[in-house]
Amino acid sequence: MLELQQSDLHSAFGDPVLGSISFLNEIMSRYPDAISFAPGAPHLAFLDDLDVARHVDTWIAHQVAERALSREQARSLLYEYGPSRGLINELVADALRRDHGIEAGPDAVVVTVGAQEAMLLTLHALCARPGDLLAVVDPCFVGIRGAARLLNVPVVCVDEAEDGVDVDALRAQCRAARSQGGRIRALYVSPDYSNPSGSLTSLAARRRLLALAEQEDLLLLEDGAYGFTAPPGEEIPPLKALDTEGRVVYLGTFAKVCLPGTRVGYVVADQAIRTDDGSQRLLADELAVSKSMVTVNTSPICQAVVGGMLLEHGGSLKALAQRKSELYRRNLALLLDALDRHLPPEAGQAPGVSWSRPAGGFFVRMRLPMSADTALLETSASQHGVLWTPMSHFYASGKGDNELRLSCSYLEPDRIEEGTARLAGFLRQEVASGRPSGTGPAPPCR
Amino acid sequence: MLELQQSDLHSAFGDPVLGSISFLNEIMSRYPDAISFAPGAPHLAFLDDLDVARHVDTWIAHQVAERALSREQARSLLYEYGPSRGLINELVADALRRDHGIEAGPDAVVVTVGAQEAMLLTLHALCARPGDLLAVVDPCFVGIRGAARLLNVPVVCVDEAEDGVDVDALRAQCRAARSQGGRIRALYVSPDYSNPSGSLTSLAARRRLLALAEQEDLLLLEDGAYGFTAPPGEEIPPLKALDTEGRVVYLGTFAKVCLPGTRVGYVVADQAIRTDDGSQRLLADELAVSKSMVTVNTSPICQAVVGGMLLEHGGSLKALAQRKSELYRRNLALLLDALDRHLPPEAGQAPGVSWSRPAGGFFVRMRLPMSADTALLETSASQHGVLWTPMSHFYASGKGDNELRLSCSYLEPDRIEEGTARLAGFLRQEVASGRPSGTGPAPPCR
Repeated sequence: MLELQQSDLHSAFGDPVLGSISFLNEIMSRYPDAISFAPGAPHLAFLDDLDVARHVDTWIAHQVAERALSREQARSLLYEYGPSRGLINELVADALRRDHGIEAGPDAVVVTVGAQEAMLLTLHALCARPGDLLAVVDPCFVGIRGAARLLNVPVVCVDEAEDGVDVDALRAQCRAARSQGGRIRALYVSPDYSNPSGSLTSLAARRRLLALAEQEDLLLLEDGAYGFTAPPGEEIPPLKALDTEGRVVYLGTFAKVCLPGTRVGYVVADQAIRTDDGSQRLLADELAVSKSMVTVNTSPICQAVVGGMLLEHGGSLKALAQRKSELYRRNLALLLDALDRHLPPEAGQAPGVSWSRPAGGFFVRMRLPMSADTALLETSASQHGVLWTPMSHFYASGKGDNELRLSCSYLEPDRIEEGTARLAGFLRQEVASGRPSGTGPAPPCR
Repeated sequence: MLELQQSDLHSAFGDPVLGSISFLNEIMSRYPDAISFAPGAPHLAFLDDLDVARHVDTWIAHQVAERALSREQARSLLYEYGPSRGLINELVADALRRDHGIEAGPDAVVVTVGAQEAMLLTLHALCARPGDLLAVVDPCFVGIRGAARLLNVPVVCVDEAEDGVDVDALRAQCRAARSQGGRIRALYVSPDYSNPSGSLTSLAARRRLLALAEQEDLLLLEDGAYGFTAPPGEEIPPLKALDTEGRVVYLGTFAKVCLPGTRVGYVVADQAIRTDDGSQRLLADELAVSKSMVTVNTSPICQAVVGGMLLEHGGSLKALAQRKSELYRRNLALLLDALDRHLPPEAGQAPGVSWSRPAGGFFVRMRLPMSADTALLETSASQHGVLWTPMSHFYASGKGDNELRLSCSYLEPDRIEEGTARLAGFLRQEVASGRPSGTGPAPPCR
């Protein structure tokens, strides 16, 4: 009987970055009664919004009205293969223009199987030559590092500064790469309440980043996943809306504003390509071509569900996301309030424990005076019934040993309260026990 | 304004293999009134079978009954992220066992975004080292060559023999590769009425192929897409059902037996891996891990549609496919009959024109005494209103210049008749005109 050798398979297998999601699933399955602040899962209050048949009908009726199709012709689009670039590109482009000031035509949009496929396709297209590097903000979403790992694209890390990416560090990295014969081709950045750190890039920092991209000739891969959670009036324009030079590729997902179960995302790639044969092409055209060899096309049924939901909200992403945005902010406020009550800094019950205070997003970043490692997580789960994510999972550089990520997106208020009480009890006990810290005292969390 | 250089992007862009699908779409859109034998599209008679809401309900009811979930819990599976390996793995494994004699547990199955993603993941895992090669039967499905091109996996070609792959040629290729320090890691093969040649691999040839895989230490990537079209009583077991040594990775799709619009496929990869850490893992486990960085998971909504359709047919792929199989065979018989009537060989009206006579599948292969190139296709479309696919699109070796592919899967009987009449008229005229043949007289088509 054949036995394959691990060393004969792709070297990505066994890399921790590819295993971090299954690690979390595994520990959650072992402690089913624990309250979990680990996954950034959607809240199930919105399950009632999902009416697959109605959304599909809405989208079909729109096709009939807008494209002069018969109902049968419109329905047949669900059944057949479809264009690799997608069916709802115009809806997406219109919504991005209206809601976020992103000016890009439907021809610059490729509808993908979640933002994950968009990341893979974009990296594949851009980081193709030996020496091409991807820069990421450290810590960052594991999906981009995983995609880079699959594609054998080396990753360089840039620290976060107070209000966004450390631009000076990025510039230094660009120059260092060039001096070694390589080039940083793109920076992956999530400027709105990023996963996992929850940090927000200021408008000034966004402009600095765009200027740097122009100076150092790199692209910015902007992940807009959590922008919808910004408090009303506090929205900052996406990088792509500020991008006058074509430096930004925008990665979008409907997982949060609609639901993960459709697996629909998109990429806006309006960059012109100087082709060998003189033909006019956009980066989006090339991404659609490579998509045809990855997943052929995004399920028309799923696109119709998302398209229908969008149409039922006047074609507005903001209107579609409004109730969700409110609920997620409520949960975040409840968590921050519970932390303040259960771990009052002035009481000094858990010295060295601090946490961030984001105004949006799914994530609170907490610093401990000890190593927030797998062993600590096991203790937390088995003895206190509360789970969280070690932040080291999200660092490419090996940092973050003293940090953890808390997410409360999918929890009910009473679970947030009870979970925080458990976490506080656990931390008080651990801090009092004086176990050794992983990498020395951490600076307080902003 | 930024302009990207084509030479800075992945070299796959511009490769004809990635452009062949858009070429066909483009020519079809320029000649909307032509009868097209080009695409292997599904027949829309079955659009009425699609009742998204009912299929989803069927699947939910099954989850409630089998997994002791509440209806709400089962519904929530549609809404959320899901396991990378899939939700309908047990249904798939049961159906493959019952219908095709493939003995593999649900843990050996990964549900993918169509068979295309299954191909990409499998190639990525297996052809990972420098010198790792993929062998393909020439001609073959463009999707596997496109996936190899994206992943920079070199492809070697093996000719077809009378009843399947030319095993001696494959053995010679394996040895040649080894003598150059490389290795053929896998052969992609579609033994049942393959796309595009329509050829069927005999049982004896299947056994020879399995023996060779063992002798030369390679894997067989079996694409089972068209097996369901075999006439009753003429089904030949898949390679995977004959595979006692774990040499076959089976690639499946629901695009043909259900519908393309769900984008659901699967891979059966029950090969054990000798891991560095001694853990027990299957190739499927690694494919699920890499899938999490390509598309995260296959849409649960789409899996529920497919799962529901399967359940409504007693969990049997054969029962599900029966009406389709009958209709596609009817169309094939109509096409072959029309060809016989419009181009009777004994009449000598188009000497040198011959075609294959498959008993199943979507495709008839035709040989011409002239080059079946793009220029000929333009003439056929513009002057005779009939389209087909130049077979050279499907050859990796540059052969096939005198061949074309005819597909009639999605056409109505009157269109098949009229299209064949047009094609026959065109060919009679072209042969009479005595235009130069591309590569000399071709052997008659079997």
